[in-house]
Amino acid sequence: MTSPAIRRYSTHLRDLKWTPAEKTIARKVYESALREELEAVVRETKQMAAKIKQVGDVWDLEHHLTQRRREIDREYDYRYSVLPEVFGNLIRKGRIREEDLRGLRDDKLDYIQAYSKL
Amino acid sequence: MTSPAIRRYSTHLRDLKWTPAEKTIARKVYESALREELEAVVRETKQMAAKIKQVGDVWDLEHHLTQRRREIDREYDYRYSVLPEVFGNLIRKGRIREEDLRGLRDDKLDYIQAYSKL
Repeated sequence: MTSPAIRRYSTHLRDLKWTPAEKTIARKVYESALREELEAVVRETKQMAAKIKQVGDVWDLEHHLTQRRREIDREYDYRYSVLPEVFGNLIRKGRIREEDLRGLRDDKLDYIQAYSKL
Repeated sequence: MTSPAIRRYSTHLRDLKWTPAEKTIARKVYESALREELEAVVRETKQMAAKIKQVGDVWDLEHHLTQRRREIDREYDYRYSVLPEVFGNLIRKGRIREEDLRGLRDDKLDYIQAYSKL
């Protein structure tokens, strides 16, 4: 479901202008979140593998990894036209905090905040 | 490629009659091979997981498990109409030995031997 706030803005999302300073902030937050996500996958895998007792646990691990890979592919997309949605989603999931994005202008922050509450 | 021996017999493969004694032998060899295969998957997974250093190794593991699962699904099929091919394949791969199948009649062993040489 798209919130009214997002519907109100959504035709303009892809037209937002990102300044070089904003791009630097965005890139840094994005890369850091992605790195932490991938490190988490490595940890989860080792933990699940250590607990494998029977082959069913192996297929559970395979399924989990496939899901994680698809989820990460879907959630991490560094196109400026979708980045406010990406950041909103990462805030909602607790991967980043709103204050990490300090320095972005309100036109982006408004979108990000709206997406974070979906 | 189908060998001449198999082509000569192949219309009759599904018409082979399996005696109860043969079914007992076949079931035992099949179950034992499958159990060993699955135990091997568990071992491989733990070994690969223990060596994971970065996220690329995780996706390699996921890919390997998907391949193994599909391979096992394809290679283990306990329908009597395909069992000679299944056993021939397992012999070729060194998962079982011809002598494990002692007690099967020549009509099956001929097929199995032919498939094992494909």
